[in-house]
Amino acid sequence: MKRINTSAISGMQELLPNTQVIFNTIKDQIARMYHLHGYQYIETPTIERTDILLAKAGGDTEKQIYKVVKTAETADEADQALRFDHTVPLARYVVEHESDLTFPFKVTQIGRNFRGERSQKGRFREFYQLDVDVIGRNTLSIAYDADVVETAYAALKTFIKPKMLIRISNRKILSGLLEALDLAEISKDIFDVIDHAEKVTAEQTKSALEALKISADKIAKILDFIKINGEREAAVAALRALEIKNDKFEAGVAEIDFVLKTLEQHGLAGVAIADMLIIRGLDYYTGTVFETILPEYKGIGSICSGGRYENLASNYTDQSFPGVGISIGLTRLFYILESNQMLGEFQSTSVDYVLIPLSDAEYGFTSQVAETLRKEGKSVDILYSDKKLGDKMKYASKNAKYVGVIGENEAESRSVEFKQLISGEKETIQFA
Amino acid sequence: MKRINTSAISGMQELLPNTQVIFNTIKDQIARMYHLHGYQYIETPTIERTDILLAKAGGDTEKQIYKVVKTAETADEADQALRFDHTVPLARYVVEHESDLTFPFKVTQIGRNFRGERSQKGRFREFYQLDVDVIGRNTLSIAYDADVVETAYAALKTFIKPKMLIRISNRKILSGLLEALDLAEISKDIFDVIDHAEKVTAEQTKSALEALKISADKIAKILDFIKINGEREAAVAALRALEIKNDKFEAGVAEIDFVLKTLEQHGLAGVAIADMLIIRGLDYYTGTVFETILPEYKGIGSICSGGRYENLASNYTDQSFPGVGISIGLTRLFYILESNQMLGEFQSTSVDYVLIPLSDAEYGFTSQVAETLRKEGKSVDILYSDKKLGDKMKYASKNAKYVGVIGENEAESRSVEFKQLISGEKETIQFA
Repeated sequence: MKRINTSAISGMQELLPNTQVIFNTIKDQIARMYHLHGYQYIETPTIERTDILLAKAGGDTEKQIYKVVKTAETADEADQALRFDHTVPLARYVVEHESDLTFPFKVTQIGRNFRGERSQKGRFREFYQLDVDVIGRNTLSIAYDADVVETAYAALKTFIKPKMLIRISNRKILSGLLEALDLAEISKDIFDVIDHAEKVTAEQTKSALEALKISADKIAKILDFIKINGEREAAVAALRALEIKNDKFEAGVAEIDFVLKTLEQHGLAGVAIADMLIIRGLDYYTGTVFETILPEYKGIGSICSGGRYENLASNYTDQSFPGVGISIGLTRLFYILESNQMLGEFQSTSVDYVLIPLSDAEYGFTSQVAETLRKEGKSVDILYSDKKLGDKMKYASKNAKYVGVIGENEAESRSVEFKQLISGEKETIQFA
Repeated sequence: MKRINTSAISGMQELLPNTQVIFNTIKDQIARMYHLHGYQYIETPTIERTDILLAKAGGDTEKQIYKVVKTAETADEADQALRFDHTVPLARYVVEHESDLTFPFKVTQIGRNFRGERSQKGRFREFYQLDVDVIGRNTLSIAYDADVVETAYAALKTFIKPKMLIRISNRKILSGLLEALDLAEISKDIFDVIDHAEKVTAEQTKSALEALKISADKIAKILDFIKINGEREAAVAALRALEIKNDKFEAGVAEIDFVLKTLEQHGLAGVAIADMLIIRGLDYYTGTVFETILPEYKGIGSICSGGRYENLASNYTDQSFPGVGISIGLTRLFYILESNQMLGEFQSTSVDYVLIPLSDAEYGFTSQVAETLRKEGKSVDILYSDKKLGDKMKYASKNAKYVGVIGENEAESRSVEFKQLISGEKETIQFA
């Protein structure tokens, strides 16, 4: 018979059970934190109409999308593709179910998305994203910008031990500055320069701005501006000291001041800071933008980011749905944590007990022992096998924390000696 | 601007948050039961090579498969498709990671699968399956046939209140019978007739067997055979009373006797019964087969089924991996339960508290209240809005169980009166 190649498709993460259990623990912890912060959970289909997915997408997305084709066509097939993020399906969901939702709609989505990125270490084509968003109808309080940041931070804290820094900016500040400097027309190009400023030298940033034919005094202003970062009071003072007369600029400064103040009230003083280098590449952000880094592990890059968008669903409806959201890209983040040996504290054994009945005469009692332990919330595996006891103990030591061998004597006395597989400690439990 | 059609793609289930929360509660309960029974969790990619997916598939599967095509091709793209079940990816996983796994490999998979079925009420193109399987290397104790049944039953019991009946047969019994009757060559046709016997009259079943040119005495034997059902002792006695001299038949009877006895020891006497009408359409089952019904809701059909297969991965390797598995098709099952008003007891509100600060002066104290409640495991939503208090109370009553309004007095006294939104009962909590 012809054998088939069984290696995994490239770019797809596939874990062994003892790693998967850590991944799931983290995923569940994030989900629980989102839930505790009052976000409602929804799921949208993995497959969406291509025209919906691409309504607002740029060139890269269009190139990376996975189209879906039925082998045998049925009459109602539209042009379809796999979703590449949760934001586009959320926009469709909100428009479609608008009359059944209450606003502001605080929503979390946790699921797999798909992008045909070129194979590269730590880049995956199928990946989990864990998002929270708040969607308003017509208006949405700026306090939610702080709410999503605080929620994401609480979630990240459950599994990230090194210090985190949430760097926050506001697109209105930079846009207002560029308007005031009469540079609004090339703002997109300037955004790109600033977005890359951290990866190059100060001199290179200056040259890149010069290449855009910006005058020296304006370049100086921009370079002063992007150096502004730090805690609220000092950063806001530095922004005001720039003496920019522009409504958008002032609105942006007022917003970042408010967001950072609200975050201080949530206990994030020193964690959430202003940082004018933060841009976020995506076009649709219009206000608050943020990225989260681990200052002790700079190479890791941003582990969680997001921002405010003026109108979630402008492609589908005339109604206005302003929103703010964040996303944790868990598949890549998990890969990074694993590569940096930062998963040490996690328990990679999901099974608590392996019970080994010595013959089928003990199946009945073994089953009762298992049920008693399961009622206490323990995970219990019964090993049915006619292999040697040594092999069975090896199985237990690979899979569980405790092992109990159940033979005639145990069944008769209804007591089992359990061995802790790491310490070797023994404890006998009497069953009723 | 051109507006885009935002209706969901047909055949995809999409729930509102208050229904989604019930779906997830059930999904989590099943997952927890699988875990308590010692099954290890894995996830495989949604996308697999088409040749792997179709290696063993029949005509219908091939027609229903969703092919996946990258928009911009990269060099390493193989012919790919969305998985239509968990069994085929599991086979690939086991072969690929064989040296890192311990056998028997007790495994659970919970995820979305895809089939392009024709649109029909309660039939979904994207659906959740929650599977447990046990895979052995070379051998696998028959006791696992009972283990998966017991595990699935424990999981179903967490959310299905009406009586369940698990109908069990064994393919060896019927195959042995047909061998003994010299009908092995047309066994596939006879399987089909028996598989449909419940949907037609006894007379029609008889005619269908006559159409296969089977002699009257053999037809009588088959009809006697398929009437056999009920608790272990009586059913096994009735099978033995047929006096079939065939090794396979006898092995099958011994197996079903053992599986039912083991299930009795697990407390499933009267729930798990023998029933010779059970066939399971799929070719790959070779021993135990089972289906679960709700006798008080016969129209619902089987809510959970599975069986034993001789060799999970025969298409990919020369090694032998016998297995047994069950699958709960939750998307369809949830639809059935909802349509039959069988989700009554579930709490459809996931948020416990809505806190309403009256102005931003109270954000700090509100945040402290929220954190205190969250530490007790409560889900707490803070509503930021400048709408009227009436609108805010409406939001709270739609989203949560309790509401607390926080103004100047509350912040000063650090005490909040919470109103239970259904009963109207009030309780004041003093915060530290």
